[in-house]
Amino acid sequence: MFILPEEVTLIEVGPRDGLQNESKHVQEKDKIAFIHALQEAGITEMELTSFVSPKWVPQMADAAHIVKKTKKVGKQIVLAPNEKGANLALEAGARSIAVFVGVSNSFNKNNINRTTDESIEALKPVILKLKEQGIYVRACISTAFYCPFEGKINPDSVVELCLRFIEMGIDELSVADTVGRANPRESFELFKKLIDELPNVLLTAHFHDTRKMALANIFAAMQAGIDRFDSSAGGLGGCPFSPGATGNVATEDVAHMMDSLNIHTGISVKKVCEAVAVIAPHVSHPIDTGMYRLFLNAQL
Amino acid sequence: MFILPEEVTLIEVGPRDGLQNESKHVQEKDKIAFIHALQEAGITEMELTSFVSPKWVPQMADAAHIVKKTKKVGKQIVLAPNEKGANLALEAGARSIAVFVGVSNSFNKNNINRTTDESIEALKPVILKLKEQGIYVRACISTAFYCPFEGKINPDSVVELCLRFIEMGIDELSVADTVGRANPRESFELFKKLIDELPNVLLTAHFHDTRKMALANIFAAMQAGIDRFDSSAGGLGGCPFSPGATGNVATEDVAHMMDSLNIHTGISVKKVCEAVAVIAPHVSHPIDTGMYRLFLNAQL
Repeated sequence: MFILPEEVTLIEVGPRDGLQNESKHVQEKDKIAFIHALQEAGITEMELTSFVSPKWVPQMADAAHIVKKTKKVGKQIVLAPNEKGANLALEAGARSIAVFVGVSNSFNKNNINRTTDESIEALKPVILKLKEQGIYVRACISTAFYCPFEGKINPDSVVELCLRFIEMGIDELSVADTVGRANPRESFELFKKLIDELPNVLLTAHFHDTRKMALANIFAAMQAGIDRFDSSAGGLGGCPFSPGATGNVATEDVAHMMDSLNIHTGISVKKVCEAVAVIAPHVSHPIDTGMYRLFLNAQL
Repeated sequence: MFILPEEVTLIEVGPRDGLQNESKHVQEKDKIAFIHALQEAGITEMELTSFVSPKWVPQMADAAHIVKKTKKVGKQIVLAPNEKGANLALEAGARSIAVFVGVSNSFNKNNINRTTDESIEALKPVILKLKEQGIYVRACISTAFYCPFEGKINPDSVVELCLRFIEMGIDELSVADTVGRANPRESFELFKKLIDELPNVLLTAHFHDTRKMALANIFAAMQAGIDRFDSSAGGLGGCPFSPGATGNVATEDVAHMMDSLNIHTGISVKKVCEAVAVIAPHVSHPIDTGMYRLFLNAQL
């Protein structure tokens, strides 16, 4: 018989990871309404926005406004790809910052035109400076299972990369199946390995539902001992390298599975669906998650 | 660490369970093309059609033609709700017949206007006669986890019902989460209990993906020792008592998870998607499963 955690934390990534790849421009006021509705639903850790170049990602040009104008509830994280982004985030008042790097060289080269090593070396002084200032740093490790260019990733490389971030003093690792290809055995094995081989650190699992295995992967990761999961309300988001990919696992579906398993999250599934209804008219594709569909059919 | 089976059998239910609730009339020739495409994909056990009253289910009025005109490949099962249906099935040449009953009294009352006991008593002479003639009998046990009217079902009632069918000499039990509400812990626990408490019998698990937990439930059922799963190409089908429900777990998504886990099924995911493409233009809703979406985006 397996043992599951009694309590699980969901880190909401819809407003950042979800909207960052959204082709339709979402207005600042609609993003803020979405974020507030998610806070109302009981979300206490959230990726709010991203301090990337507005030239590259016009969707996130309102990052400073989003930080300033949203209510301060729990851990509000913003993404910063580099020192410039981190400085802008700090100026806006952010106290929790996420950085990211892929395990795969080819992925990093395609994504930010740097090798994995170059990416880490570039982030190191940024992270050290943030930690000096007492900022919470979340390191997002992408392509931890598969790379769209290189295929299967060696779990030892994931451990090695995680250790380098831990040495820099980061607070949390979010380890991601960016392309949505991991299966539940791989989920169990990688997270078991990370729990066994890494020193004490907040460890979060990030799954995409491209091949419909996200909840199975979350279930398997819980069996390995993981109790923190990234998720995105409405399943917003996707990987630009995976055409047709349906993106992040939906917060309402994960929260419902936890409810069903009697695992406490503090999150109201119905209120997450209400938050989804706030953003749904402003995105370019219909939202069709399990619980949101039931919500629309008045089955919640 | 958990142990998974090396080989899994998928029982395709799309042409019967899937199309039975389809509101748009599907022509006989399109059903036959769909069935043949599924056989081409490597399906060796399939629910072909249903010998129900054409007055109640006009979609299945061509049942005898479907049996007669499709190629004989592996185990071809037809559903028969009663003696009349069973006789018509035998006349058409069927050698494998499925019967069904819900565990829940209220479900049976609403579905066929009989209590569970009355349903079993009515089926008993039919099953005994079929077994005398050497017919393969599959008993489908619906609402084995939850009933839309009664809520949670007592697992002891499931065992008891299964035992009554086993006493009648049936060959296979397909135990179903008809309303798509089971979670992976419930899946593991019920199937572990059935394996432990039932004498040797072919045991099949049938999950719906309404709340997106179907693959997680299948993964958990495999951990309990199950190696047979019902699935429906394109996720066709749904429960008439669950508005908005997305119905059966998709064959292409289950087969892909098995491939990914190195579990042999003998089924080609791509060819299942090709079979889905055959039926897709003839059903009333867009098909949007994980693997079919990737197939349409040329990602397979």
